[in-house]
Amino acid sequence: MPQNIYDDDSFFSGYSTLARSVQGLEGAGEWPSIRAMLPDMAGRRVVDLGCGFGWFCRWAREAGATSVLGLDLSEKMLARAAADTSDPAISYARADLDHLALGAGGFDLAYSSLALHYLETLDRVMASVHAALAPGGHFVFSVEHPIYTAPSQPRFVTAEDGRTIWPLDSYLREGRRVTNWFAPGVVKFHRTVGSYVTALLAAGFTLAALEEWGPSDADLAAHPVWAVERERPPFLLVAARRG
Amino acid sequence: MPQNIYDDDSFFSGYSTLARSVQGLEGAGEWPSIRAMLPDMAGRRVVDLGCGFGWFCRWAREAGATSVLGLDLSEKMLARAAADTSDPAISYARADLDHLALGAGGFDLAYSSLALHYLETLDRVMASVHAALAPGGHFVFSVEHPIYTAPSQPRFVTAEDGRTIWPLDSYLREGRRVTNWFAPGVVKFHRTVGSYVTALLAAGFTLAALEEWGPSDADLAAHPVWAVERERPPFLLVAARRG
Repeated sequence: MPQNIYDDDSFFSGYSTLARSVQGLEGAGEWPSIRAMLPDMAGRRVVDLGCGFGWFCRWAREAGATSVLGLDLSEKMLARAAADTSDPAISYARADLDHLALGAGGFDLAYSSLALHYLETLDRVMASVHAALAPGGHFVFSVEHPIYTAPSQPRFVTAEDGRTIWPLDSYLREGRRVTNWFAPGVVKFHRTVGSYVTALLAAGFTLAALEEWGPSDADLAAHPVWAVERERPPFLLVAARRG
Repeated sequence: MPQNIYDDDSFFSGYSTLARSVQGLEGAGEWPSIRAMLPDMAGRRVVDLGCGFGWFCRWAREAGATSVLGLDLSEKMLARAAADTSDPAISYARADLDHLALGAGGFDLAYSSLALHYLETLDRVMASVHAALAPGGHFVFSVEHPIYTAPSQPRFVTAEDGRTIWPLDSYLREGRRVTNWFAPGVVKFHRTVGSYVTALLAAGFTLAALEEWGPSDADLAAHPVWAVERERPPFLLVAARRG
């Protein structure tokens, strides 16, 4: 089972201050790119793996989804998510993504935002999602980009000539990484872009899109401080189809 | 048209000393991984985009290919390739990969080793290869990995704590890069992993495999000096199918 860091008091307090926690999807820079990968929501049965505060679940319903199931390991996040809706077509449940037991073919879209890099292995979740999707179903997910998760010292530094560089190392050494992010000892798992793609293909998915997200010119006009994200991509966005 | 650096005397002399130039495919660390992506060669009509000295063309014939067409921009490399075979089923021709004019559906496998990063745009070559392949045909290629091509100063440095790091910057700034490699002013074009995948999918290909190559444990036992390649992948290997 992955570490349940989101229920740590310090982590939860810190995470709750992020723009994506306060403003929801519109506070997440990568949301327009993810939204462009999604199918029309009308009539879809949706499952959100790592739903957090439920922003996507509520958006999916407003966009026409028939039903939405939000799953998360964090009791605190699920409590807030449940308190923020009275829609009977949105359900929340506590779940360990390493051990999903979803009904076969019961969903048209599986969505996951910035959750899968907390899992030590991908094979189980990929197989579970594939089985849970109806034929033609969509799987759209984001993760911290492998360039972001790889380094032993994952922070920008200034080179001797003044350039801002991302000191990449250990990219091809997959496995556990421990960082301090709102709380000490946050555990995540580094794997390569190739490993994400290979796990998808091995589970039987067809790759539909792969984007290494960075800020657009319009993003930079609104958020000049995001410029450094062009040095290395913070997020990997992937869309796949069940054949 | 891409720069014809391989016909520069200094470049050609230097390049000719590489293990992959002297020993052929067995001198290229990534060859076993690429070979694993290839279909059975028996009966295949093969085109090699950027064939260099023709090592792959000769291997493909020995492995059962019916015919092999090797294309390259370098007259010096083509001359040596032509001198190294008398097989009537192997042909070589000078070609600019930006302006291919291959017969429609005339090939079962298109192969390209470390050539496409010299092209400013991918759309034309992807469309040309797709049209040149028969339905079900394979496209297998390698390029310098985008992490390798991105930086403004693409060489390992030693961090203050003694770690060897790859000083990544400009990953999301695609375009021209100029390096000194056997000759000054070698021009190549950086693009992201996402852009390679997007160009393939846009041309109508289905992605079959994507590997970010690094040395295996067996490779390191034989070549301890390759260990640094695990800090960042030198090559991106891709296999795709025409539907």
